[in-house]
Amino acid sequence: MAGADIDRLIQRLAKLPGLGPRSARRAALHLIRRKESLMEPLARALAEAAATIRLCSVCGNIDTRDPCAICADPRRDAATLCVVEQVADLWALERTLQFKGRYHVLGGTLSALDGVGPDDLRIPELVARAKREGVSEVILATNATVEGQTTAHYIAESLAGTGIAVTGLAHGVPVGGELDYLDDGTLLAALKARRTV
Amino acid sequence: MAGADIDRLIQRLAKLPGLGPRSARRAALHLIRRKESLMEPLARALAEAAATIRLCSVCGNIDTRDPCAICADPRRDAATLCVVEQVADLWALERTLQFKGRYHVLGGTLSALDGVGPDDLRIPELVARAKREGVSEVILATNATVEGQTTAHYIAESLAGTGIAVTGLAHGVPVGGELDYLDDGTLLAALKARRTV
Repeated sequence: MAGADIDRLIQRLAKLPGLGPRSARRAALHLIRRKESLMEPLARALAEAAATIRLCSVCGNIDTRDPCAICADPRRDAATLCVVEQVADLWALERTLQFKGRYHVLGGTLSALDGVGPDDLRIPELVARAKREGVSEVILATNATVEGQTTAHYIAESLAGTGIAVTGLAHGVPVGGELDYLDDGTLLAALKARRTV
Repeated sequence: MAGADIDRLIQRLAKLPGLGPRSARRAALHLIRRKESLMEPLARALAEAAATIRLCSVCGNIDTRDPCAICADPRRDAATLCVVEQVADLWALERTLQFKGRYHVLGGTLSALDGVGPDDLRIPELVARAKREGVSEVILATNATVEGQTTAHYIAESLAGTGIAVTGLAHGVPVGGELDYLDDGTLLAALKARRTV
């Protein structure tokens, strides 16, 4: 409907998660109207990030250097290892500003259906790393889904007998959450894990 | 939380309409995971579009050439001019594949509050163009909002006495629309404009 360059841009934008064909058209027009302030900086930011970003060979995080800033930081506690499914989960935990240990990014969950086995998720690397680095606690922070919990269970079994403490995130009412909108499973977990105020 | 390049990319992505901070993070990770197939092509598409896209000096459409493909196409009927607010509206009409006239993109609507006057919307250019090109019909396809209709009304008055027919889009039930979900104004308009089946 417009030039080939515009059509190509819209097609590329439509491949972003959260943008469909309609919002990709809107985004393209928005960018074209703000060529100097948005479009060219975004093009540069993408090209620069594509050129510099790599996977951390230790933990699977993404960063512009390898090992990543977290693995290379001597102030981070090497004795505590937090296992997450994806880099996005690592970022979410970092935003709490409270966790001072290190991470291990699996890159997904075990799935017999999709043919994802332990070797695809860097689980052998996790076990080897935990032993090699003298880790005392592995926190399993996979999602509270069936897949996430299956994966956590498998990792816990893999670490059995190593003397490493294996813990999981607590279940309960989200801060600010209303009981009425909460699913029964969470409410039951919160009730079972009730604490003295 | 990650490298400066990643943070900058997330900030740039978050400025796209439809993407907030959370979805920008998701989009960034999605792009990083698909560097060759998505990230680099998007960077190139943006840079190329930024370098080649310009505004059509005749109608205000965007294209890689000036005049745009529509204005330059001799098969398009020069006697019918369709006035739209934005380029996105022009694209929407083009997708119908039925309109064979030409366009005039205003770039917005009249707004006393925001200080947008007729000169900011290329309305004098529209009137001059309609007279110069011997246009016989101007279709006012501005949005069916208060601002769009105010702007259409102003344009209709500007063209009064020129002998050019001024028309507007019909109101009615959207194709596939359910009456129960329709606002009263549209339903009333559809009822008033009822036709023999």
